[in-house]
Amino acid sequence: MAGYPYGPPPPYGSSPAPSAPPYGDKPPKEGKTSSSSSAPPYYGAPPSSQPYGAGGGGYGAQHPFASLVPSAFPPGTDPNVVACFQAADRDGSGMIDDKELQSALSGYNQSFSLRTVHLLMYLFTNTNVRKIGPKEFTSVFYSLQNWRAIFERFDRDRSGKIDSSELRDALLSLGYSVSLTVLDLLVSKFDKTGGKSRAIEYDNFIECCLTVKGLTEKFKEKDTAYSGSATFTYEAFMLTVLPFLIA
Amino acid sequence: MAGYPYGPPPPYGSSPAPSAPPYGDKPPKEGKTSSSSSAPPYYGAPPSSQPYGAGGGGYGAQHPFASLVPSAFPPGTDPNVVACFQAADRDGSGMIDDKELQSALSGYNQSFSLRTVHLLMYLFTNTNVRKIGPKEFTSVFYSLQNWRAIFERFDRDRSGKIDSSELRDALLSLGYSVSLTVLDLLVSKFDKTGGKSRAIEYDNFIECCLTVKGLTEKFKEKDTAYSGSATFTYEAFMLTVLPFLIA
Repeated sequence: MAGYPYGPPPPYGSSPAPSAPPYGDKPPKEGKTSSSSSAPPYYGAPPSSQPYGAGGGGYGAQHPFASLVPSAFPPGTDPNVVACFQAADRDGSGMIDDKELQSALSGYNQSFSLRTVHLLMYLFTNTNVRKIGPKEFTSVFYSLQNWRAIFERFDRDRSGKIDSSELRDALLSLGYSVSLTVLDLLVSKFDKTGGKSRAIEYDNFIECCLTVKGLTEKFKEKDTAYSGSATFTYEAFMLTVLPFLIA
Repeated sequence: MAGYPYGPPPPYGSSPAPSAPPYGDKPPKEGKTSSSSSAPPYYGAPPSSQPYGAGGGGYGAQHPFASLVPSAFPPGTDPNVVACFQAADRDGSGMIDDKELQSALSGYNQSFSLRTVHLLMYLFTNTNVRKIGPKEFTSVFYSLQNWRAIFERFDRDRSGKIDSSELRDALLSLGYSVSLTVLDLLVSKFDKTGGKSRAIEYDNFIECCLTVKGLTEKFKEKDTAYSGSATFTYEAFMLTVLPFLIA
């Protein structure tokens, strides 16, 4: 059994209580949906994971930019994020570019491809500028922390991989309910282990989360009636989909 | 100036007259469209390129599987395609798998990535089975021949690259009218030259064509009223988009 590839196990019992789901800023309109549920099917179960920015919960040595910070700092507070940002901002420009972000993330026992970093930057800025400021950095920080905690929770045997049904549960705990057909497609795309049994490694899990999160948010933008259906013009469709293709 | 990277120049003047557009199996319904044109904007101008399967027009040494055929054969007839198919079908299974197709295509002065081959197979079978039979092989054959001829037509200086406005014209001649915004996104995705001026090389052009063709066809399937707008459920949206992501 390989060692646990992303640091010591997190204190699972210390998660704060769930707050509103990440997309809870605009509740589904009652009576507008076609299914028996009051929300479109892709909203799934309410996330049981740590809400972004909730603080607390001992990430200390666990957080994704830990390698950048030379000394310990109090967990769960904004100054940590600021310190990480300043450490990542190697040229002191006040913005983190793609190479800086890749370097900062890759220090954390992981290699993030530039491709993943670009998708990350696109999804957190909605532009192709490939620079992020403090606000987006903070969102990235908490999202990655959250995704890692979820991955660790479902990687029960600490193999550094999760299987198909664990991926489904992991996505569900992030608030994304995908069908078995979509799940199968996701696994076929993000399983890069080359093994006989299908499995997703941590960095591919992050890419999978980014993809599902990004596509779902784009869909939601068009599903203004919360009906579970969205209408696109050809232009909007192309502009929605193309950014997800790997350059 | 580098040599022309995909064989001797084709006999440009010998193209047969255009026939129906590739998507002409189902004409736009009059009176259903919202623009002044009778077709949605993404249908663009009628293709001026060689229609698939039109035969004639001296492809002889030009066709994409030329390297597989040991001796000359009469151009423009089905037996050529059959011969190519048989040569590509190394294990004699009657089906071409992904490795066989990659090998057959790569023989033709090109290296096609397995990723491109998988996208090709997906788009010509609508499945992830990764095997194609004679019928799909024939479509792949004529499509690649057509795309190469178009690439060559627009690569006027024979540099092996086309620029952004040439890409737009090339797509238009294939029947795909994309906006400048979409064009810009396509170039940013498929320009892998690393050069200062943006340009698309042949294999990336093929991938670009596959992507635009595939996404446009998927969109059209949902745009049943030919209105230029398409409605997707979340499930359909995810199942439409995910296959285009690079595995």
